[in-house]
Amino acid sequence: MDFKKESIQLHKEKGGKLEISSRVPVRNKQQLSLAYSPGVAGPSLEIHKHPAKYRDLTSAGKTIAIISDGSAVLGLGNIGAKASMPVMEGKAVLMKQFAGLNSIPIVLDTQNTDEIVETIVNIAASFAGINLEDFAAPQCFEIEKRLKERLDIPVMHDDQHGTAVVVLAGLINALKVTTRQKNQVKIVVNGTGAAGVAIIKLLDLYGFDAIVACDSQGVISKQRKNLSPIKQEILHITQSKEGGSLQDAIKGMDVFIGVSKANLLKKNDVKNMNRDPIIFALANPVPEINPEKASKWGAAIIATGRSDYPNQINNVLAFPGIFRGTIDGGVKNITDDMKIAAAEALAKLVSRPTKRKIVPGVFEKGVADTVANEVKKSSKKQK
Amino acid sequence: MDFKKESIQLHKEKGGKLEISSRVPVRNKQQLSLAYSPGVAGPSLEIHKHPAKYRDLTSAGKTIAIISDGSAVLGLGNIGAKASMPVMEGKAVLMKQFAGLNSIPIVLDTQNTDEIVETIVNIAASFAGINLEDFAAPQCFEIEKRLKERLDIPVMHDDQHGTAVVVLAGLINALKVTTRQKNQVKIVVNGTGAAGVAIIKLLDLYGFDAIVACDSQGVISKQRKNLSPIKQEILHITQSKEGGSLQDAIKGMDVFIGVSKANLLKKNDVKNMNRDPIIFALANPVPEINPEKASKWGAAIIATGRSDYPNQINNVLAFPGIFRGTIDGGVKNITDDMKIAAAEALAKLVSRPTKRKIVPGVFEKGVADTVANEVKKSSKKQK
Repeated sequence: MDFKKESIQLHKEKGGKLEISSRVPVRNKQQLSLAYSPGVAGPSLEIHKHPAKYRDLTSAGKTIAIISDGSAVLGLGNIGAKASMPVMEGKAVLMKQFAGLNSIPIVLDTQNTDEIVETIVNIAASFAGINLEDFAAPQCFEIEKRLKERLDIPVMHDDQHGTAVVVLAGLINALKVTTRQKNQVKIVVNGTGAAGVAIIKLLDLYGFDAIVACDSQGVISKQRKNLSPIKQEILHITQSKEGGSLQDAIKGMDVFIGVSKANLLKKNDVKNMNRDPIIFALANPVPEINPEKASKWGAAIIATGRSDYPNQINNVLAFPGIFRGTIDGGVKNITDDMKIAAAEALAKLVSRPTKRKIVPGVFEKGVADTVANEVKKSSKKQK
Repeated sequence: MDFKKESIQLHKEKGGKLEISSRVPVRNKQQLSLAYSPGVAGPSLEIHKHPAKYRDLTSAGKTIAIISDGSAVLGLGNIGAKASMPVMEGKAVLMKQFAGLNSIPIVLDTQNTDEIVETIVNIAASFAGINLEDFAAPQCFEIEKRLKERLDIPVMHDDQHGTAVVVLAGLINALKVTTRQKNQVKIVVNGTGAAGVAIIKLLDLYGFDAIVACDSQGVISKQRKNLSPIKQEILHITQSKEGGSLQDAIKGMDVFIGVSKANLLKKNDVKNMNRDPIIFALANPVPEINPEKASKWGAAIIATGRSDYPNQINNVLAFPGIFRGTIDGGVKNITDDMKIAAAEALAKLVSRPTKRKIVPGVFEKGVADTVANEVKKSSKKQK
């Protein structure tokens, strides 16, 4: 099946994927007077007096904005605002399908960090949360950081944290399946874009302390010159004292996590890993290693981003439930504890993890509800 | 019935007035692959190559943004972004109800003209049109002007042009009912806020050349010092050589149009007008003159903004059809010709105008369709 061609056809037929409709009837003067003028002055004044009632009296107070500048869209790269819209509408469809949340895509016709931040700050009152999507690294880090500082609604760059949460969930179960302890495990992460950085940070926070990070130039080590601020941060939390290539670094490792490029891993790389290697080959659509080959060469567990192989690391397992949890719990800030709670919840949803099943399936029931609940509980603990 | 109280109750029960839902099913892997990754790369690349396909392949390409800074909301004044949201959601409900259009409210947490313009320019790619709502004068004029210059989608400040279109429609029929010719008619407009300025400009364009404009300090005349830029513009297109008060100016006039304050007009003012006076008392919720009294004192035709009197000048008669017309016709700019076409279409919808029926009722069928058609036709003429 040619998914792209079929998808164009579907989008044409439907004329786009979202429908915005009214929850109240307006068929006569009285209904008009309640939904609009003069009655609407009631809820407006109520919010003016008690801003906390925004959530109960408006749809906006429970709506997530899915915002992108179109700078790093799927595998397509910097295709700009309008071309990114089908992806963002798709995301909104998933937010509704999996978490029952209203969400609306906003694409930005600027790729300037200051302008992006100011624009989002100026429109943020229209929403209950901000899901940043497909912003390129390294700007994505600065944009998210500044928005989290300035806004009192949850902000999450999904390409970073959605992915990191599902990777952690899968890793928790992969360790069980291969009978490993967290403190014994050596991990190499290849790729320091949005996802790679967030994965490294979350794994570090979770207590993995033997992580080596690589980018396209090899290990991020003290020997490297002119490291960007974010890579210096990575250097600080990883154990990458020695330089070298990914091929050097992967030797003796228990876990490979790739968020990088197609077909990077060779037979020898798998052979050179520790016993029962765990491989997360998340490059999309073509993974860092072909799953069948990886298996043949000795990998114990292989996860990819693809739906046609077992163990799909799909952030749709995380973001709908996380945002649902923030709405249900009145959460103003998505914390690291909440992300870990979400990952542990996802891991637990697989009652008996196996090599071919370390994360729940995308369409399994109750995933978002469970994640939402744990996020909510985690927020209560902090209060 | 206490509309405000009932409205708060309704908003609480419904939890806001808008619902965003999916037009495509996502219940299995194949559907997910078409609505989202990997299939969605198809429509995204298609738009990247052919930006004009945005309209056909996305919902955004047919969605109107209803944008406010909350600076001049209904009769409530400057209540700010969040408190204005119930009004904006109401507007979105009307856009759907009367024109079948998707629209989404965006409230801005800034009242700085430059910031407002930049913010809207940055998010405009997410929409097919911009309905500016409840921006205070005089900033509203500058904001609309700059946005119209910078954007290639239709932008309309509804408080200005929606109102002006319906006033012109009503006036066309009021002249028929009182057997007056356009070139004989003397008009005084009281109020030079958003609506007043737009009314004066549209009436002037339509060919009324005996218009006098008043603000809270009386006639806008050459004798006035320190007139704002917009009032100088008004001075230029009105016949207000002599100064004086509204009470002076109304003497001998055929038409009074008030977009000003409650209970300004007295018995003598009506008596002092020309035969069969036409009075549009549009202050809301309390008009410039009580309609029953105006009638008793000799007014031939009275229009208000209220639904409980005849001749309601409600811009819901205009904006849904105008935006529908721009979407149907692929119109990039709402011109004066289109506004006049819309007004004439509205006037014609009343087949036999009477003193108590100079504009269509809000719930009459076909109003938005007719307006949309005329806007579309008008745009074709310009091409």
